[in-house]
Amino acid sequence: MEHVQQTSSPAGSGATVRDLAARLGLSAATVSRALNGRAHVAEETRRRVQEAAGQLGSPAAQPRPRPRSGPVLVRCPYELTDYFGPIVSSVAETLRVHGREVLLDAGNAGYHDTVLRRLPARRDIAGAVLILPPEEPAELEALRASGTPFAVIDPRVRVPRDVLSVAAANAAGAQEATAHLAALGHRRIGVVSAAPALAASDARMTGHATALAQVGALVDPALVRAGEPVAATGYALGGELLDLPQRPTAVVCFNDKVAVGVLQAAAERGLRVPRDLSVVGFDDSDVSRATTPRLTTVRQPLLEMGSLAASALVRILEGHRAEALHIELATQLIVRDSTFRVPG
Amino acid sequence: MEHVQQTSSPAGSGATVRDLAARLGLSAATVSRALNGRAHVAEETRRRVQEAAGQLGSPAAQPRPRPRSGPVLVRCPYELTDYFGPIVSSVAETLRVHGREVLLDAGNAGYHDTVLRRLPARRDIAGAVLILPPEEPAELEALRASGTPFAVIDPRVRVPRDVLSVAAANAAGAQEATAHLAALGHRRIGVVSAAPALAASDARMTGHATALAQVGALVDPALVRAGEPVAATGYALGGELLDLPQRPTAVVCFNDKVAVGVLQAAAERGLRVPRDLSVVGFDDSDVSRATTPRLTTVRQPLLEMGSLAASALVRILEGHRAEALHIELATQLIVRDSTFRVPG
Repeated sequence: MEHVQQTSSPAGSGATVRDLAARLGLSAATVSRALNGRAHVAEETRRRVQEAAGQLGSPAAQPRPRPRSGPVLVRCPYELTDYFGPIVSSVAETLRVHGREVLLDAGNAGYHDTVLRRLPARRDIAGAVLILPPEEPAELEALRASGTPFAVIDPRVRVPRDVLSVAAANAAGAQEATAHLAALGHRRIGVVSAAPALAASDARMTGHATALAQVGALVDPALVRAGEPVAATGYALGGELLDLPQRPTAVVCFNDKVAVGVLQAAAERGLRVPRDLSVVGFDDSDVSRATTPRLTTVRQPLLEMGSLAASALVRILEGHRAEALHIELATQLIVRDSTFRVPG
Repeated sequence: MEHVQQTSSPAGSGATVRDLAARLGLSAATVSRALNGRAHVAEETRRRVQEAAGQLGSPAAQPRPRPRSGPVLVRCPYELTDYFGPIVSSVAETLRVHGREVLLDAGNAGYHDTVLRRLPARRDIAGAVLILPPEEPAELEALRASGTPFAVIDPRVRVPRDVLSVAAANAAGAQEATAHLAALGHRRIGVVSAAPALAASDARMTGHATALAQVGALVDPALVRAGEPVAATGYALGGELLDLPQRPTAVVCFNDKVAVGVLQAAAERGLRVPRDLSVVGFDDSDVSRATTPRLTTVRQPLLEMGSLAASALVRILEGHRAEALHIELATQLIVRDSTFRVPG
């Protein structure tokens, strides 16, 4: 990661990379590369960018290297549940092992905050770890262009190519879960997807569709629902699926709590799990071991995601190049008692 | 909270309050009061302390007020589970609302760290929130004596009288749970207590005993077990209770996950909950709503504990006196489906 000058202009002292990019019809990444004298920029483009930067008063002339010894901002704009809590623990613990202090910005109240836009001006902060950031790709791109080192965990959207990101192998995890059901003979498989982790949900749907395709089946859109990752979602939307004239023989949930709701909906309808209906969760959280029957689920490597993102960031802060920018960590199918061969 | 001089001596520049206390055979609190010129210290004692401080090179002569605008250290030396996570979220969110930055020190690796001893030397930190600190009362006392403002959430041991602490009303919560069972006719009630929250567990045992006493019954020590707050504990120790020649008709668990283990032990023995056995949990965590039957449990006000501790600390940092030093927040009994009248 290069040392770059401050290219944001919180005090109106000059143009930002985005200003320049908009004016010149270039991407923010190209503008950033041109300003920083890096390769892969045509000479003519570089000249145009530097000229425009001069006109707009870019602070490119006053490089202020970011102090690499400062604290790392950890942003998690959600309550620290049994999903986000372990990730944040692990990030904090890893940073601490590397002698870094952790500035925490956590809790739902921070969801709509514009902390990322202010970050480039915070020259006391060495870098950031962003957990499921609600920010758009353009904002992450601008942050990267500002020269602030950061890593993204569990990105909500596809992150720009040159942004360091760590996620679970969501497609492979969901594929394994559905393949497990397919091997038990299930074809009519319902899905209760979980907002708001959109990129993760998309990837899981892809995995589900892939596993079905491998046994010659297609996703039936009538069997797919989505909602908040809470039990009430599984109870309501799972109930809808179970009330269909031709109900599914299995339901895949992209969250364990949603699966708990599906189990309750099934019990109310007199359906025995797993004899009459198979149910699969996702996360391997505590609730997946508390249900009767215990849930077959997909374990997410939450602690590993946190520690890997933190240590990758530390490597960058220590002047190394990132070896891999988009990292996916393997999930694991945990087969328990909620899945069984297709009835009849 | 008074401004006091730095009384710790990390760089060997002088004696700490504890050094002085040990040398003079006084409590750290007395030494602190004497050094700070506060009331309730005999004149002779004050003279002895000041003389010893002079000999040992106490830095009492160079008062360095702590900058009140700095970040607040949040120490939670445990993984951010669905218990600690919400507390830390709430602390961080409240501090943020008050414009405070949060330095996070979280994760099991910090358990044996001596961060509290180094804290008085960290003049950049305004204060601290300590969540279930593993530190002994003497260490908290020394920290208080050093003039570092801090609040303790869910103290493991009885905290010194002048330390700000916030906890759930553990005794009242457990008393309400056992009274609920007693009203259903239960007298032979097992307990699976949960280490390591010792002060909390002691208070809950007190509440349990009080509720039994109110119906003329005594705690039978043969029915009391304790272990780590995980499902395996409930499975093993709950199993022991259920295998007694005269087994209990109800089991109170001081943790929901422990109650999950008891449910599993009961199921393996062919006992139907709640017809044959009533089970009560503690915490109202997600798992308490995932079991079959759903658990009757005691809700802990985790978010309120976090926000109250943070805002009380902020008031102190803003120069106000703490209005209450030991705060207990009400719990709530949530009656669900795992408790029923005594069989037979």
